[in-house]
Amino acid sequence: MNIVCIGSGNVATHFAIALKAIGADIVQVWSQDSRNAEILAALTKAAPISSWDDLDRSADCYLIAVKDDAIASVAAQLTNVKGIVVHTSGATSIDVLSAMKNGYGVIYPLQTFTKSKAVDMIRVPLCIEGDQESTLEKINVIAQLLSPKVSVVTSEQRLILHLAAVIACNFSNHLYELSSRLLEQHNLKFDLLKPLILETAEKVQSALPAEAQTGPASRNDQKTIKKHLDLLNGTPDLQKIYEMLSNSIKKTHL
Amino acid sequence: MNIVCIGSGNVATHFAIALKAIGADIVQVWSQDSRNAEILAALTKAAPISSWDDLDRSADCYLIAVKDDAIASVAAQLTNVKGIVVHTSGATSIDVLSAMKNGYGVIYPLQTFTKSKAVDMIRVPLCIEGDQESTLEKINVIAQLLSPKVSVVTSEQRLILHLAAVIACNFSNHLYELSSRLLEQHNLKFDLLKPLILETAEKVQSALPAEAQTGPASRNDQKTIKKHLDLLNGTPDLQKIYEMLSNSIKKTHL
Repeated sequence: MNIVCIGSGNVATHFAIALKAIGADIVQVWSQDSRNAEILAALTKAAPISSWDDLDRSADCYLIAVKDDAIASVAAQLTNVKGIVVHTSGATSIDVLSAMKNGYGVIYPLQTFTKSKAVDMIRVPLCIEGDQESTLEKINVIAQLLSPKVSVVTSEQRLILHLAAVIACNFSNHLYELSSRLLEQHNLKFDLLKPLILETAEKVQSALPAEAQTGPASRNDQKTIKKHLDLLNGTPDLQKIYEMLSNSIKKTHL
Repeated sequence: MNIVCIGSGNVATHFAIALKAIGADIVQVWSQDSRNAEILAALTKAAPISSWDDLDRSADCYLIAVKDDAIASVAAQLTNVKGIVVHTSGATSIDVLSAMKNGYGVIYPLQTFTKSKAVDMIRVPLCIEGDQESTLEKINVIAQLLSPKVSVVTSEQRLILHLAAVIACNFSNHLYELSSRLLEQHNLKFDLLKPLILETAEKVQSALPAEAQTGPASRNDQKTIKKHLDLLNGTPDLQKIYEMLSNSIKKTHL
């Protein structure tokens, strides 16, 4: 299978390396930035390109892993390619690719990638979608080789998943950051919190989050909540976040 | 070393079992609820008691692991014991024990405990405090046997740590719950999110949360934020939380 990888960011890098590992041939890596194209191309023994004029239009699959806003303009360059065209975005409908002539779809990896950190693709749930049954089948073959966790979801469902991921993960990371700042202000090390952060995430791998909920708000411990809010008098933004999330926990658990 | 364990909840259970494992002798387990006292006493080969009249007043250490609100009334029963008296609360000052005659202090485990789930005490940061140097030394000896991560912190610092733990962990778990409900409403499985939740917590074990931040708010992706907010029109409480946390991320990162 010949694949052209469009993009050179975190998602493109993890996909290209994983695809290479399952035996796919990455024929080209396209990136607007020729230096980035070269780096990823070197990792996957592909040819780097930065101009659409150089695009190999005979590959089996075109994997678009660029910023959401750039997908439409990339797709406009791919209307007459031989293979299927697939994007990797959680928040973008499959319809952005509707002008593709030979099948199109989505492989959305429900994971956070950092270039510097290897993520085992085998542990990443992949949400796939195709414009028609035959395309979905092709996408499914690739996805199943990458991960045992493949689900067929619609564009609407994918956006919900993306939203849920933002709430559960982007926002949690922000809470980690807010607490690390608070500790820093009081000359305490964030290291102290790390085991608790990990255990909290590990708990919900087997228990339901509703069952795992602990803390002053879940037991309506007004005295402790008051102490905490008083400590946050100097940081009104964080105080508001504390209040809003505590009230939300109370509403859910009391 | 002879220890009396006051309480039979999650913290009491994990401490008593860990103390037993390092060779301490749990002589008694006190609980208002005699059945609970019996269960933990059986696990640690201790004698269960429910009346203060039966208290062995000659132990080396009295470990109070009851609800914050009950610490003062328990302490009132322990003023004339032989050994040191130690509580385990994050949000309670050492001063609640100031009437103790033979030394008092705190061992606060910065971890979340569930009775059904074994937590390796060796991975739990313990924050200790003592009324005087000699008590602190005694508490330190016990703490060091339980965990290699022992820090001496004041009551004020401990309350900050407790607050940071609530923000980073109790609130994150609530976000897990809110996202699991959202998925359920759309017939999607929470299982899909679990690897991402774990990876998010694992990332900040080595990277700073500020560096690990991803998502639409951190890159000011207004289009995606708008799509998400529209999806939350039917759940105004969650919509408000989404807006507040997104704004907080923008303030921090843009």
